[in-house]
Amino acid sequence: MSDFSNDGKGQELLHTPGGVRDIYGLECARKRTAERKVQEVMKSYGFRDIQTPTFEYFDIFSKERGTVQSKEMFKFFDRGNNTLVLRPDMTPSLARCVAKYYKEEEMPMRLCYTGQTFVNTDKYQGKLQEVTQVGAELYHDDTSDADAEMIAMMTTCLLACGLEEFQLEVGHANLFRGLIEEAGFEEEEEEELRKLIVSKNFFGVEEMLEELTVTEPLKEIFIKLPELLGDLKESSAFVRERTKNEKVLDALDRLLKVEEILKIYGLLEYVTIDLSMLSGYSYYTGVIFRAYTYGNGEALATGGRYNELVGQFGVDMPAIGLVIVIDQLMTAMSRQKLFKEEKLGGTILLYPQEYRRQAILFAEEHRKKGKTIRLLRTSSKKTIDDYKEYARRMGAELLLYFAKGDEPEEIMI
Amino acid sequence: MSDFSNDGKGQELLHTPGGVRDIYGLECARKRTAERKVQEVMKSYGFRDIQTPTFEYFDIFSKERGTVQSKEMFKFFDRGNNTLVLRPDMTPSLARCVAKYYKEEEMPMRLCYTGQTFVNTDKYQGKLQEVTQVGAELYHDDTSDADAEMIAMMTTCLLACGLEEFQLEVGHANLFRGLIEEAGFEEEEEEELRKLIVSKNFFGVEEMLEELTVTEPLKEIFIKLPELLGDLKESSAFVRERTKNEKVLDALDRLLKVEEILKIYGLLEYVTIDLSMLSGYSYYTGVIFRAYTYGNGEALATGGRYNELVGQFGVDMPAIGLVIVIDQLMTAMSRQKLFKEEKLGGTILLYPQEYRRQAILFAEEHRKKGKTIRLLRTSSKKTIDDYKEYARRMGAELLLYFAKGDEPEEIMI
Repeated sequence: MSDFSNDGKGQELLHTPGGVRDIYGLECARKRTAERKVQEVMKSYGFRDIQTPTFEYFDIFSKERGTVQSKEMFKFFDRGNNTLVLRPDMTPSLARCVAKYYKEEEMPMRLCYTGQTFVNTDKYQGKLQEVTQVGAELYHDDTSDADAEMIAMMTTCLLACGLEEFQLEVGHANLFRGLIEEAGFEEEEEEELRKLIVSKNFFGVEEMLEELTVTEPLKEIFIKLPELLGDLKESSAFVRERTKNEKVLDALDRLLKVEEILKIYGLLEYVTIDLSMLSGYSYYTGVIFRAYTYGNGEALATGGRYNELVGQFGVDMPAIGLVIVIDQLMTAMSRQKLFKEEKLGGTILLYPQEYRRQAILFAEEHRKKGKTIRLLRTSSKKTIDDYKEYARRMGAELLLYFAKGDEPEEIMI
Repeated sequence: MSDFSNDGKGQELLHTPGGVRDIYGLECARKRTAERKVQEVMKSYGFRDIQTPTFEYFDIFSKERGTVQSKEMFKFFDRGNNTLVLRPDMTPSLARCVAKYYKEEEMPMRLCYTGQTFVNTDKYQGKLQEVTQVGAELYHDDTSDADAEMIAMMTTCLLACGLEEFQLEVGHANLFRGLIEEAGFEEEEEEELRKLIVSKNFFGVEEMLEELTVTEPLKEIFIKLPELLGDLKESSAFVRERTKNEKVLDALDRLLKVEEILKIYGLLEYVTIDLSMLSGYSYYTGVIFRAYTYGNGEALATGGRYNELVGQFGVDMPAIGLVIVIDQLMTAMSRQKLFKEEKLGGTILLYPQEYRRQAILFAEEHRKKGKTIRLLRTSSKKTIDDYKEYARRMGAELLLYFAKGDEPEEIMI
């Protein structure tokens, strides 16, 4: 056992702030692998890296543009007393960038990123305050082809990571928006209705509508809404018979087209078109989508079309984006027991001081060939069994030993 | 030209805070490549990823442990009113982690990281407030072999990125420390002497020492110090004849050993052993090293041994670390004109709506083979010349077009 004196000194320094954490060992290796796989899929679709600052002026994420409430952002001040925030979301930052650097471009632009985002939630909610997001944004392409491409790419990213059981919900932000407009609800009424629909509380919706003046056909749509998923032809026909609201009809047309294109991608088995799908993000204007797994309420990936956000930065352009929350993806994969028993691997090369030259030259040669070699000079205080045990703990594959000659001998561990 | 109305709306939202910036296009692609190459070298030496939170409690980076002054940290508060800081440096965070998760381990541990670090400098200093650091820490190996390994690995990282002209200074934290102890200088005297030595102001050193009571041999060392680089045998003999201070003599012995091992690595041509080398980091206790290029004052990579830092977190263990500041590395590479004229690459696949199926299937097939395919549905508002011009702007390698049959035709761009 260890001989260091651990007398409690420094113990109070061992904690991370509530809501953030350290990731190490196999978990960290798996996280990096997942990030890399998602990045590779995005690259194959032609998305190119961009990196924005970890903190920005508060205004970038203000109410009209943000996905997170002001009180849930980490705020601080620069030396000029301007309010800075740790970015809660990348989409407004990237919108700022395209408006700044690509304002003359009229053809499609594909940008992707990997970065940390932050929400200052109450730590007792058990929600992570810092997560890694890998996301992609496609600008200047307002076609249903672009919608389907982003949904297909998100599905491909999850499959590339080895996730097997997941569901991708697809809806349209203008469906509910159009219905609310037609019904002429107040903001609080809308909020209450949203909550009831999200929790799929049919009776609640019915009860609420009884007390409001809504036309009978609209009432029927609202009540039926939580059930309108699965067969899109059937559910869109039901809505179509009961409203002439243009936003709603256009949204239905768009979803039918997107479904048709997703069929070409061969990914429909993962997709559920859900007419009752709502998004908390106010900037979405078209298709919205999110991936989740059973037994996990929080989406592990989300996306949607936001044709009016970039305009807030001075340049009008259609856009659609998606984000994969790597930490949520890892949780889902862990629950589905998708991680194999694996070793971190590599080779430990043990050498007595007099064989230093041979050991270093051997290690350098093999590192250049892509091998992982950990050099370790033998100590008189350790036995060969100590080293074997160490190699096992490290999940190292081989323990090599220089004792004589120019080649190390292999030791089984 | 573009037809959007850019009437100045949103212009005030286009700025990042002073001192931080966006990185996009070729620059971002190059940065990611450099990061990956450095990470690959570290992997080959057996270092394993760890990820710590972007912000931590202030205490982690306090005076004894930190490399940055309190007033140069970005600070804010959590909901319990504790002071949080954006990490200015990763080493204390990793020291916290090993003390927490690996306190029983007595054998070497190798950890590496990639992450953003932050300093709240005055923006008029022109220094970046946020940079990407890729670093590595080796714990529980107090040998000169470990010292040489870290210096060799840092050199290998820079070479792997294609950096050709750089200098690696190697010194020892205890050299100056031992001499100061022997001379019995006050703190302010030490500070002044440091400044004179760093600026290689020989006359200043001499003048200052005239006014202090220092023995003649010590005075000779201090005056000669800025010149003591290059031939280590000669310069260490000079010091050895003039002091019996144990810290100093041990430091000289260590540097001689490290130099001997670096010779085996074949990297001595990049290394200058500099006995006058000083470090601003108070936690270093052994060899210190830094890489820089001509014409750039700031080091692009630094490292050193810090055998007493982890103990502050409750577990004594020797440690040595290095960090490569990717943003500084990029600046050096750019000054040395090491970036080739390159294209971001990939293929644009154009298709009219009626060939959507063929285009999607073609794209998916080639993406799976590792190709980059950007799908683009033709628009009646654009001509083929518009698309050719777009492909040129994008640095795309190929423009393909589906007009008939199952295979797209190639278009010269």
